[in-house]
Amino acid sequence: SVNPDLASERQTASFSVEKLTALLDGGAEQTRMRRAVVEAIESDPVFSRENQYFQTQNERYEAAVRKAVHLQKKMHEMGWTENGPEYKYIYRALSGDVAFLLHRIFMRSISVLGSDKQIAKWIPLATQHKLIGSYAQTELGHGTYLQGLETTAVFDTATQEFILNTPKISAMKWWPGDMGRSATHTVVFAQLYIHGKCYGIHPFIVQIRSLQDHSLCPGITAGDIGPKMNFEHTDNGYLLLKNVRVPRENMLSKFCEVRPDGTYVRQGSQKINYFTMTSVRISLISDEVLTPLMKACTIAIRYSVVRRQSKLKPGEQEAKILDYQTQQEKLLPQLAAAYAFHFSNDYLQELFNRGYREIQKKNFDMLPELHALSSGFKAVITQHCTAGVEICLRACGGHGYSLLSGLPSLYTKILASCIYEGENTILLLQTARFLIKCFMAASAGQPVPPSVTYLAAVKHGKCPAKNKLDFLSPDIYTEAYQHVAVRLTSSTAAKLQDFIQSGVKKHDAWNQCTVQLVQAAKAHCHYIAVKNFAETVEKLETKAGIQKIMKHLCDLFALHGIFSNTGAFLHDGYTSAAQMDMVTASYLDLLAVIRKDAVPLVDAFDFTDQSLNSALGSYDGQVYQRLYEWAQKSPTNQMSPAYERYLKPLLHNTLSKL
Amino acid sequence: SVNPDLASERQTASFSVEKLTALLDGGAEQTRMRRAVVEAIESDPVFSRENQYFQTQNERYEAAVRKAVHLQKKMHEMGWTENGPEYKYIYRALSGDVAFLLHRIFMRSISVLGSDKQIAKWIPLATQHKLIGSYAQTELGHGTYLQGLETTAVFDTATQEFILNTPKISAMKWWPGDMGRSATHTVVFAQLYIHGKCYGIHPFIVQIRSLQDHSLCPGITAGDIGPKMNFEHTDNGYLLLKNVRVPRENMLSKFCEVRPDGTYVRQGSQKINYFTMTSVRISLISDEVLTPLMKACTIAIRYSVVRRQSKLKPGEQEAKILDYQTQQEKLLPQLAAAYAFHFSNDYLQELFNRGYREIQKKNFDMLPELHALSSGFKAVITQHCTAGVEICLRACGGHGYSLLSGLPSLYTKILASCIYEGENTILLLQTARFLIKCFMAASAGQPVPPSVTYLAAVKHGKCPAKNKLDFLSPDIYTEAYQHVAVRLTSSTAAKLQDFIQSGVKKHDAWNQCTVQLVQAAKAHCHYIAVKNFAETVEKLETKAGIQKIMKHLCDLFALHGIFSNTGAFLHDGYTSAAQMDMVTASYLDLLAVIRKDAVPLVDAFDFTDQSLNSALGSYDGQVYQRLYEWAQKSPTNQMSPAYERYLKPLLHNTLSKL
Repeated sequence: SVNPDLASERQTASFSVEKLTALLDGGAEQTRMRRAVVEAIESDPVFSRENQYFQTQNERYEAAVRKAVHLQKKMHEMGWTENGPEYKYIYRALSGDVAFLLHRIFMRSISVLGSDKQIAKWIPLATQHKLIGSYAQTELGHGTYLQGLETTAVFDTATQEFILNTPKISAMKWWPGDMGRSATHTVVFAQLYIHGKCYGIHPFIVQIRSLQDHSLCPGITAGDIGPKMNFEHTDNGYLLLKNVRVPRENMLSKFCEVRPDGTYVRQGSQKINYFTMTSVRISLISDEVLTPLMKACTIAIRYSVVRRQSKLKPGEQEAKILDYQTQQEKLLPQLAAAYAFHFSNDYLQELFNRGYREIQKKNFDMLPELHALSSGFKAVITQHCTAGVEICLRACGGHGYSLLSGLPSLYTKILASCIYEGENTILLLQTARFLIKCFMAASAGQPVPPSVTYLAAVKHGKCPAKNKLDFLSPDIYTEAYQHVAVRLTSSTAAKLQDFIQSGVKKHDAWNQCTVQLVQAAKAHCHYIAVKNFAETVEKLETKAGIQKIMKHLCDLFALHGIFSNTGAFLHDGYTSAAQMDMVTASYLDLLAVIRKDAVPLVDAFDFTDQSLNSALGSYDGQVYQRLYEWAQKSPTNQMSPAYERYLKPLLHNTLSKL
Repeated sequence: SVNPDLASERQTASFSVEKLTALLDGGAEQTRMRRAVVEAIESDPVFSRENQYFQTQNERYEAAVRKAVHLQKKMHEMGWTENGPEYKYIYRALSGDVAFLLHRIFMRSISVLGSDKQIAKWIPLATQHKLIGSYAQTELGHGTYLQGLETTAVFDTATQEFILNTPKISAMKWWPGDMGRSATHTVVFAQLYIHGKCYGIHPFIVQIRSLQDHSLCPGITAGDIGPKMNFEHTDNGYLLLKNVRVPRENMLSKFCEVRPDGTYVRQGSQKINYFTMTSVRISLISDEVLTPLMKACTIAIRYSVVRRQSKLKPGEQEAKILDYQTQQEKLLPQLAAAYAFHFSNDYLQELFNRGYREIQKKNFDMLPELHALSSGFKAVITQHCTAGVEICLRACGGHGYSLLSGLPSLYTKILASCIYEGENTILLLQTARFLIKCFMAASAGQPVPPSVTYLAAVKHGKCPAKNKLDFLSPDIYTEAYQHVAVRLTSSTAAKLQDFIQSGVKKHDAWNQCTVQLVQAAKAHCHYIAVKNFAETVEKLETKAGIQKIMKHLCDLFALHGIFSNTGAFLHDGYTSAAQMDMVTASYLDLLAVIRKDAVPLVDAFDFTDQSLNSALGSYDGQVYQRLYEWAQKSPTNQMSPAYERYLKPLLHNTLSKL
């Protein structure tokens, strides 16, 4: 039975939840297919996530391997294929808690970087899991700066082999997933040396464990890097190489080849490589970043209408905590952000698909813009969503702090997304570099990519809003965001030039502007996100109440951004103090409006109880019952040796005294 | 041997590290005593924290009990007592990783709430650990709002007993530490009923486990609430009571007594109770909040001079990451905040001591101010330090995400401080209520407590700064902070009155202003923190370079606050856009200045390697070596059953194919 405090929230929905779910999925047919996949996975006990919060790192790893192996069988059984339409729903249904994800990266790197012959040899083996692959790039001492990698691969003409070494401790491969305990093979990135000359970083297929008994191959030292903040299910590993020899054929050679005599030959364009990074950054947004925020919102908002605490009006029953303005102000902007970034992700996907079509026609013109947008959005969305999950966690008070709420695990996992696939600050500076370049070009009257044409038109006007309702006009707030993005880019470009003209070296000048460059890059992405949300709302059907509630969320997303960052909008007087008070008033009004639909808005995300795995967030809202039931299963409720060892001796003389 | 990249940072310190340590400790004699305690604890293998990151919740609990029991012996051996000067260093030296902390709260509650007779009976038993106590207040459904507790205690005149019940699942006691597995007794807070009439919440001593065999007493259901984000060492528990009878003498009766015939008698003043909460909030700041931030800064800053990544200048060696402006901007403001709040804590302690002296003279006048300041500062400092630890963690990239860095555990633990001992939003609203009251009083010409007299003098001037150096003047920035605090308080008071005058009910009006009330409370505390830091610097000796570097940190703390919150300062034109650019310039300049002393500034915190327990933060900076050594000890490097069960069957046909 559904908790009546939750049930009542659903009766007053201003829109059709089912239609909104279909909109998020990209159509009712997609919703149907997703649900079928979820149903097939969740009804299979091998994929159960029960007791997950009680498991050790070793148990989590073992379960992830079990699931990965079983998944092959399941896919065969269900007729799902890696290229089929159901595939993208499988990972989401498993909540990512499965092994051999790096095996897929191993395969992709061979497909992208390998010759036809190499692809023909390795891909079938990998597809049939005749080996387990990994991807060994990051080193103990080297992450973001690939050119700094220290692992070496020296070509030995005599034996036609490469000799691989990790010459220093900082050269040790560190972090590769699936490598600590599972992988038999890996792609090692190393500095290629031929006849004493360094040719830079190249990829080599290296076998690291015996296929017979899984023992480490000669010259290999490898293991697991130990406990992390999350990802207990993944055996992130370390790898030391000591004179490990691989045949010449094991260097992935689509773009570069070493001939038998040691001649180095470069072939084709490597530009496509950048495209791979772009693709990875965009593809992680949905499953790794948006889904956790949506889950966190679902948990925190459902809990906030079931939890009653203190009195809002004297003499009445204790109030639902979502009725407090401060609680609304914590949670509802996160909900709006989840929707905003869902649509940003659609925008990036579309841009990416267009870019891909162009690249297939050998037109690489879109690459810089795609790279800049995917880098900036990866950073902004991961940052924003990580903060959002943390806010949801804290907003649930003590119960949010229990692992059984599901929120700690969501937080500790999403946090990693700020670091992997490009550390966020580094990424924002790449976006900033693009912005500065485009701003200079635009100022010189040269053409620039579509997403930055706005930089050309620096306007010095004032915000025309006259009352608080004007701030519910997308034109008004989108223009304000645009103004800020232009101002931050142009002022930083000017500062950079001032430095250089006053004799500061270019690299020093850049470093001394980086704090502000990061601000400019964020403002750019925030502007695009607001603009895209507003345009998406514009195009929605006016039926079923969906456009109306999405408009409210878009307004909230935009006004929350202004309210949280007033200085940027006030700075040059574009927005006046009186206007800022209007923003605040409209913003606070919106909270009360959206609060009414808060539960239906998270219901539309359509998470099953199994996938939320939260004692606070289930569909029926039976929070306290579930917390109690789950806690009783905890291994901490078994007898502890601490009693016999320490407590009994301490207490054994007491009895006579009481 | 010390990593040369770290050693070089120490050679150029602009001040005496040892003298700064003594300043932080409150004198060289305190430093000596602290070090003696740390040395005694750390040289004792029972207190070892080695392998802590590999332990399960059960193992952590057992270790904490072992340490708690051993600590009694150790204290006896060392001649330390609970009232001795060494006592406060013990908990810090143990990094809080010890059981029976709630036993101390059990004792304190009896001392504060019990009659002389009750104290005479229970305190000696507790002191000698003849029983293990806990403190059962929070319920599954009730945290901040004490009046809402649902546990009942019905007086039975016939048997002269109280009958205790948790009548609903939401009434179940939930969270009490030491109660899940250890405690034999607890203080239960319950609604007192006599002859069918409710007299509100009262405390009762209840035995929950047998002293003979530790089995649960009749009518008691209790256990551990399961996994949490941290505090694995603590057995936070649940407790159900079913017709549990305790004698009339077990109601703690310093302030209220139930006579044999059921007559209820109230005696003395309970005001002192508020004082207890105040004392707890202040006392947690140092060990639970400042120490973790100081540790995080130590780890992240030492790592950032050892970690080299990418090139700052073309052709040079890879740069220390602390040389990047963006890295400085992440870490150095946290360092400044650690110092700022250390001095805030001194200020609060002093105020508290003064308040305590007055209360002993039966003068309760200081209570409202003390309550408001301790609530606000608890919220602001926990919030700020939690965010600071997270920034430190992220700033260490992938290695920060490893548990071996120590940073994840610092973060997951400090996060709880935002929730316990008063949820931060609730606390800030209590501060805000005080501010509004004082503002109204001051406006009406009535006297107000010293910390809020500034509210009386609303000035409408402008910031007088003329160039960026003016913003290094404490008068300039302190006044700016003051101006913002007054503006936010007065404008919210006006909004509140407008609502009420326009017919909105008082409680609704309050709720609709709470987002802004929270802002006002934060601004008030921030202003006091800046003012106090500036005044502290003023009073420091000018020798040994300490005043100079503290002045830099004070400036950085103040300017970072303005830079991060420009809107509040720009809003009414008190600070102009041109002045804000000066703030930015001075702020960024300061980063480069303080960066030079960053390592000596964290060295002064004087943490031992054992207490940091971090592969990244040790004094010698041998980061990579330590990560590798520690990882090899991880239980994830033992053979996993996953190989025989899943990998072997998967791979066993491969050999012939390769």
